[in-house]
Amino acid sequence: MLDTGPTTPNVPGAGTLLQLLRDGAPRTRSELAGVTGLARSTVTARIDALLASGLIGPAGEAASTGGRPPTTFAFQPSAKVALGADLGATHGRLAITDLVGTVLAATNADLDIAAGPQTCLDWIIDQGRQLLSDVGRTTQDLLGIGIGLPGPVEHSTGRAVNPPIMPGWDGFDVAEYVSTRFAGPVLVDNDVNIMALGEHFTQWPEADHLLFVKAATGIGCGIISENQVFRGAQGAAGDMGHIRVAGEDGPPCRCGNTGCLEAVASGAAIAGQLSEQGITAHGALDVVELARSGSVPALRLIRQAGRDIGEVLAAAVNLLNPSIIVIGGSLALAGDHLLAGVREVIYQRSLPLATQHLRIVQSRTGEPGGAIGAGVMVINHGLSPQRIDALVTNGVPRG
Amino acid sequence: MLDTGPTTPNVPGAGTLLQLLRDGAPRTRSELAGVTGLARSTVTARIDALLASGLIGPAGEAASTGGRPPTTFAFQPSAKVALGADLGATHGRLAITDLVGTVLAATNADLDIAAGPQTCLDWIIDQGRQLLSDVGRTTQDLLGIGIGLPGPVEHSTGRAVNPPIMPGWDGFDVAEYVSTRFAGPVLVDNDVNIMALGEHFTQWPEADHLLFVKAATGIGCGIISENQVFRGAQGAAGDMGHIRVAGEDGPPCRCGNTGCLEAVASGAAIAGQLSEQGITAHGALDVVELARSGSVPALRLIRQAGRDIGEVLAAAVNLLNPSIIVIGGSLALAGDHLLAGVREVIYQRSLPLATQHLRIVQSRTGEPGGAIGAGVMVINHGLSPQRIDALVTNGVPRG
Repeated sequence: MLDTGPTTPNVPGAGTLLQLLRDGAPRTRSELAGVTGLARSTVTARIDALLASGLIGPAGEAASTGGRPPTTFAFQPSAKVALGADLGATHGRLAITDLVGTVLAATNADLDIAAGPQTCLDWIIDQGRQLLSDVGRTTQDLLGIGIGLPGPVEHSTGRAVNPPIMPGWDGFDVAEYVSTRFAGPVLVDNDVNIMALGEHFTQWPEADHLLFVKAATGIGCGIISENQVFRGAQGAAGDMGHIRVAGEDGPPCRCGNTGCLEAVASGAAIAGQLSEQGITAHGALDVVELARSGSVPALRLIRQAGRDIGEVLAAAVNLLNPSIIVIGGSLALAGDHLLAGVREVIYQRSLPLATQHLRIVQSRTGEPGGAIGAGVMVINHGLSPQRIDALVTNGVPRG
Repeated sequence: MLDTGPTTPNVPGAGTLLQLLRDGAPRTRSELAGVTGLARSTVTARIDALLASGLIGPAGEAASTGGRPPTTFAFQPSAKVALGADLGATHGRLAITDLVGTVLAATNADLDIAAGPQTCLDWIIDQGRQLLSDVGRTTQDLLGIGIGLPGPVEHSTGRAVNPPIMPGWDGFDVAEYVSTRFAGPVLVDNDVNIMALGEHFTQWPEADHLLFVKAATGIGCGIISENQVFRGAQGAAGDMGHIRVAGEDGPPCRCGNTGCLEAVASGAAIAGQLSEQGITAHGALDVVELARSGSVPALRLIRQAGRDIGEVLAAAVNLLNPSIIVIGGSLALAGDHLLAGVREVIYQRSLPLATQHLRIVQSRTGEPGGAIGAGVMVINHGLSPQRIDALVTNGVPRG
């Protein structure tokens, strides 16, 4: 499903020019010829193709160096829109963004992922049509649709793979279902990867290496390396919830092992520990609510969960040497109570060289972060040089 | 020191053509124009530039489709040579390779890294000159010199940074010293990264994600992701020796923490544990020797070291999802005794999705792997599109 176009490295097409212009700065044909090494005639042909696509537009005249002042061209962030969807265990969130990730319209709903793929995807299709109409656009204006799911996803085929909390979704062709009923292309990834992408693109675009931790009912991690999601060989990279922190006598985990991080430090685990103390808590949000109301047992357990997450992150810091760690998910709404424990252990356990410039911060995108990230996934894919080269005439001069 | 040339993405230069040709297959001008989208005239100009550099040569005629049969061109692996050096705590190894990593000549010596940079680097310079002469080449034929050091290295500047076992090396400008006295460019990295690079390039070039573990006096890890060393933000990625496996009451580590993997499972740690049992062992090689002679205490400790290494690798598998883990270093000479422990814990602790296609193997390059890898580092850098574009005339047609 994921058509990435020609695989030739460094194809010198219109996509390369668009890539340069995505920084927003207007440039003349001469400037583009100079920076790419392309012939002036080639640049002209490709600029014409990009103008026809609407992705760039004329942006006024540059200062003249004698003669007629040259025209500049700039990226047009409103040329297309992206639809991003974030499906959680019990919620759905949608956002329409422009091509730089600005939210133009958004909506949320209570939505049970266990209701199955057709119910959930139909909600995306219906509400997506409504949002498009609200912002005065049509499916013709859609660069694509991005969908985040709360479980393992085979990104290359757009299917969920053995998702534990998603009955009816295993192997379901999400991309095909949505693209035939609404519009395409449709990209699918797990919720943590898209949250990482959204946080990076909109908040920390300069960070080469970012780890995003979602601490909620479960615990997961998205790794951004050089502007891309780091997926590993089977797309399973970033699974930190099942790394052992508590030894063989630790509590049993739903994965079948014992002592996993998720079994001791997730929202579900803390709620269980509070219940054992006679304090009613059904999930991560209840835990956060208790902490906010000053419950000492809740505060202590959240601090300890931070330390346990920090223990695994200390290993991740030694292995991956990120420049920033972002803590998100509903448990992160407990703020510094969680982060204090995380910081305590990372700074104690990781190597000085790896922590000297490391930042550990709370998520800034918050709740809409997943939907924004799903849109960013579409933007990064749809505006990649390969896709743009496939989309527009390249205007290669005859040799 | 590390000049990577122009940073413009996707510059459509001669380097792009060379990159295509590095697979060894001969191609005609038309084929190269077709696959790159470059104009025929542009391809001709760049082919001429590459021919002048000697990096490609004519490779006979293709089948004619009517008229004069077209000439094909192919990569010339012997156009240049790379010198790779691997300095360990007590050894130096050197290899001259061609541009596909084939060893043309090699030499080894006992060399104490604590003798300081001038002594060690002078050995590289003297022996490097000798090896070059042995294979009938001159410094003019050198694509570059790669050096691996047994400690943290700032790859971008070619200096050692706070190396614990390398008195006199801290901040020493290795690249400058060697390039002014011998030839350049000189690239420097830590020994584990170059071992990973050499193992990947020569043995597992198809593996997208490879982890190389060096288990010797210390324990380190090199991460190869999509043909590149994964370095992280400060170049500190891959430090698995100081991830905690033994809890707060674990043995003290030279890093100042307790319970680090290196403090329980390195060759030095096992030798110490054997000594406590009254069995004389001074380091990793003694431990391996004892195991080979059937010492049950040595075999048990090596198996347990494998399990401890496996515990940290299980976390690395969940985070990075590699397709292959290669175990090297002198402790790996114990073979299956070490690997059995590694496999036992990884398959027990890591997620099924991440282990279903995972291979865990012993290093194939063995002792010369570091020197070969240092040569590969030079080849990858020297033949990168950016470097080639900077080196040869690009033949951009006037627009």
